[in-house]
Amino acid sequence: MLISVTAGLLEKCRYRCLALCVLLVALAASIAPAQALDIDVSEYTLENGMKVIVIPDHRAPVVTHMVWVRVGSADEELGKSGIAHYLEHLLFKGTERVKPGEFSKIIRLNGGEDNAFTSYDFTAYYERIATDRLELVMDLGADRFANTLFDDKDIKTELEVVKEERRSRTENNPAALLREQLSAATYTAHTYGRPVIGWMSEVKKLAAADAQDFYRKYYTPSNAALVVAGDVDGAEVRDLAAKYYGKLKNTVPTPVRARTQEPTPIAAKRVEMSDPRVASPSISRTYLVPGVNQAPAGESEALDLLGQALGSGSSSYLYSELVTRQKIASQVSSWHNGDTLDGGEISINLAPAPGVDVKVAEEALDAAIYKLLSNGVEEGLVERARNQLVASNVYAIDSQFRLAYIFGAAFAIGRSVEHTLGWTNRIKQVTAQQVNNVARKYLKLRNSATGVLVPAPARAASATSN
Amino acid sequence: MLISVTAGLLEKCRYRCLALCVLLVALAASIAPAQALDIDVSEYTLENGMKVIVIPDHRAPVVTHMVWVRVGSADEELGKSGIAHYLEHLLFKGTERVKPGEFSKIIRLNGGEDNAFTSYDFTAYYERIATDRLELVMDLGADRFANTLFDDKDIKTELEVVKEERRSRTENNPAALLREQLSAATYTAHTYGRPVIGWMSEVKKLAAADAQDFYRKYYTPSNAALVVAGDVDGAEVRDLAAKYYGKLKNTVPTPVRARTQEPTPIAAKRVEMSDPRVASPSISRTYLVPGVNQAPAGESEALDLLGQALGSGSSSYLYSELVTRQKIASQVSSWHNGDTLDGGEISINLAPAPGVDVKVAEEALDAAIYKLLSNGVEEGLVERARNQLVASNVYAIDSQFRLAYIFGAAFAIGRSVEHTLGWTNRIKQVTAQQVNNVARKYLKLRNSATGVLVPAPARAASATSN
Repeated sequence: MLISVTAGLLEKCRYRCLALCVLLVALAASIAPAQALDIDVSEYTLENGMKVIVIPDHRAPVVTHMVWVRVGSADEELGKSGIAHYLEHLLFKGTERVKPGEFSKIIRLNGGEDNAFTSYDFTAYYERIATDRLELVMDLGADRFANTLFDDKDIKTELEVVKEERRSRTENNPAALLREQLSAATYTAHTYGRPVIGWMSEVKKLAAADAQDFYRKYYTPSNAALVVAGDVDGAEVRDLAAKYYGKLKNTVPTPVRARTQEPTPIAAKRVEMSDPRVASPSISRTYLVPGVNQAPAGESEALDLLGQALGSGSSSYLYSELVTRQKIASQVSSWHNGDTLDGGEISINLAPAPGVDVKVAEEALDAAIYKLLSNGVEEGLVERARNQLVASNVYAIDSQFRLAYIFGAAFAIGRSVEHTLGWTNRIKQVTAQQVNNVARKYLKLRNSATGVLVPAPARAASATSN
Repeated sequence: MLISVTAGLLEKCRYRCLALCVLLVALAASIAPAQALDIDVSEYTLENGMKVIVIPDHRAPVVTHMVWVRVGSADEELGKSGIAHYLEHLLFKGTERVKPGEFSKIIRLNGGEDNAFTSYDFTAYYERIATDRLELVMDLGADRFANTLFDDKDIKTELEVVKEERRSRTENNPAALLREQLSAATYTAHTYGRPVIGWMSEVKKLAAADAQDFYRKYYTPSNAALVVAGDVDGAEVRDLAAKYYGKLKNTVPTPVRARTQEPTPIAAKRVEMSDPRVASPSISRTYLVPGVNQAPAGESEALDLLGQALGSGSSSYLYSELVTRQKIASQVSSWHNGDTLDGGEISINLAPAPGVDVKVAEEALDAAIYKLLSNGVEEGLVERARNQLVASNVYAIDSQFRLAYIFGAAFAIGRSVEHTLGWTNRIKQVTAQQVNNVARKYLKLRNSATGVLVPAPARAASATSN
């Protein structure tokens, strides 16, 4: 499934970065692999182990340069949540050659834009600029990757920026708070249950040494990829990559991502939050499913289709059932996010129609899912979802950013370019029976967590003065 | 509040140890501090930093020897849950002087008994033996503390024992599984949300190196206390402690317990589990409260009284209300556990009366708490609870084990002997108003997590075939 990445979200934001990572968390599945539609992606490895992925896109004399690091918030140590994202901020704080803040200024002066984003499984930095400035960006990017300085004063100031970012994006946003609580309840052991930006109680204690340790451990060439999409020539990129990134040394061994395995879910989880800032109630449901690296062959694609068929668009099952027919909900959506290192989710968001009790809406949602599992997913529904996914992938190549993103994200979770390129073909082969199988296998309450957000103290909550 | 530690729980169990740690988790608050009733507790520090606490008890020629280490499951690294407990098992695997399994055999041959237990904040080893064998136990105990060997074969075998312990005590026990799920949902960031025995998915991957690293880091004299209760003479214990434990060297710095701070709770959490092995439903409720180290002065004791007044015994508030008067529940109990390093809990367990729907029972529980908060806690109820707590403490000194435990556990969380001795006097001073204040401050649904265990798939759950 593909999101429409709006221009606004790609703009450099006042508080650097979480623009995208929040997007990735919320809309998640979002950016799915692209098929080879006139895309001749090349991939090779520099001597220091750094991967280079080149994606030709000759529609305009523009290039997107991204550096992807195989580390994200889910790799953080206990008590250090937020360090991956904080470090991402600090990578704009300069090197011996480039003063703090200069990096982005140089990009802007050259007509480009830049930003960075952190998610559970990766951290990435990108610049979009005129093709003839590619060498400049490579030079700056390689310098930043290896030589960032950690000045005490800058580090402290930036922590305030991160805290403010958390305040404005999370603490001031009940829906974001609910999402955090829901994630925390969804996972019992895995670090996917922690927010990418970190818990405020931990963020405020992050120290310079934490950032430096994290930087030294993970920012090593053999743990990163350079992704270049745009109006470039493969040979030219190869030369520049060798010149700037190829010279970087690995001073530490390639880090091992020591993730834990989430225990098999055995209980339905639930979080209920009331907040006076909320105008109307909403329900979020998450089902744990295996990620692309764990799923038996074919399941990951069947789950893509299930996420689409269930609640993507007004022809989807839940929309037809709950919005159009029953008028219980004013909005419902669903998506699958399995493009992760360790595990995936099928998510559903539902806004009850005005006047409909949130409990009634949740019961209707459960009943609709029950009906789907009992009757089976209709062939027509799967066919529509299949066509939508295949079509959306065609649109994907419309965005240079998205193209680069798709292959970078795949690198971060250990999937090959070939695997990514083969996605559309695999989607075409999924049968309604396979979609049924994964629906019946995973859409169980014991695999689920439900979040309920209500404007005033919830009925149940009011009993003990929430 | 004091539990009646039954003989069975102190017996050496087939699977070493969790006898007590499960007890500590479940009955928690359980073993509260004892007042100085003819107890002249002495405390001093050996040159290597190891604390020695001596509690005279001359009723019988028996001595209880305990070694307390300031490390528990909440100190484990991400992905290594269960290592503290596994290591505790391995401390019975011998040294150069004592062969695997010989330790307990020697104790038994000398008419004694021994065991060990692990909890969130501590690991402790104890022996109960005739007073004239104290030197033998000291010798063995010090040797084990410093010189345990990690033989590859023994280590692997013992992991199977630990896994079997988890299977028999947790996987085969729906109530224990529910408790784990509830704890996991209760905490968003703190390691109190992980089971002491560890998640099976992590336990099965524990390696010899993990245990050795943990042992080297935490089992150092400056991080431990020797507690001796019994028919002993202070001077004699001092000489023996110096001779056996005083000679141990600190080869590492005193470990820092880098715990994280649980974010302020903002959402009511809930887990629902159905299991065919369950005969009748039950409800568990946990409210997060500050622990003894964090609570403002007087609050910890007011919470002790609240836990007691709420649901300890048939004259307690919830019992009178829900069992006696409304007949909604067949059993209800509550307790406060604040004797922890980082945070406490008020817990409630409720069994609906036969034929009463679990939803109805939960609503009745919420309504009863709401009524209590609205009307205030009656003076008579607080008075009764106060008398019960003070009296129970008199009984505490009846058990040598319990005496030693109380002071050892206090050491583990950084509380002094004086603080422990002053508990009864502080309890006597708590007013009904103070109990009211903490009730209204903490008994809010947003601070709570609710666990529901039902025999067949729950009503809600059945909608999507739980």
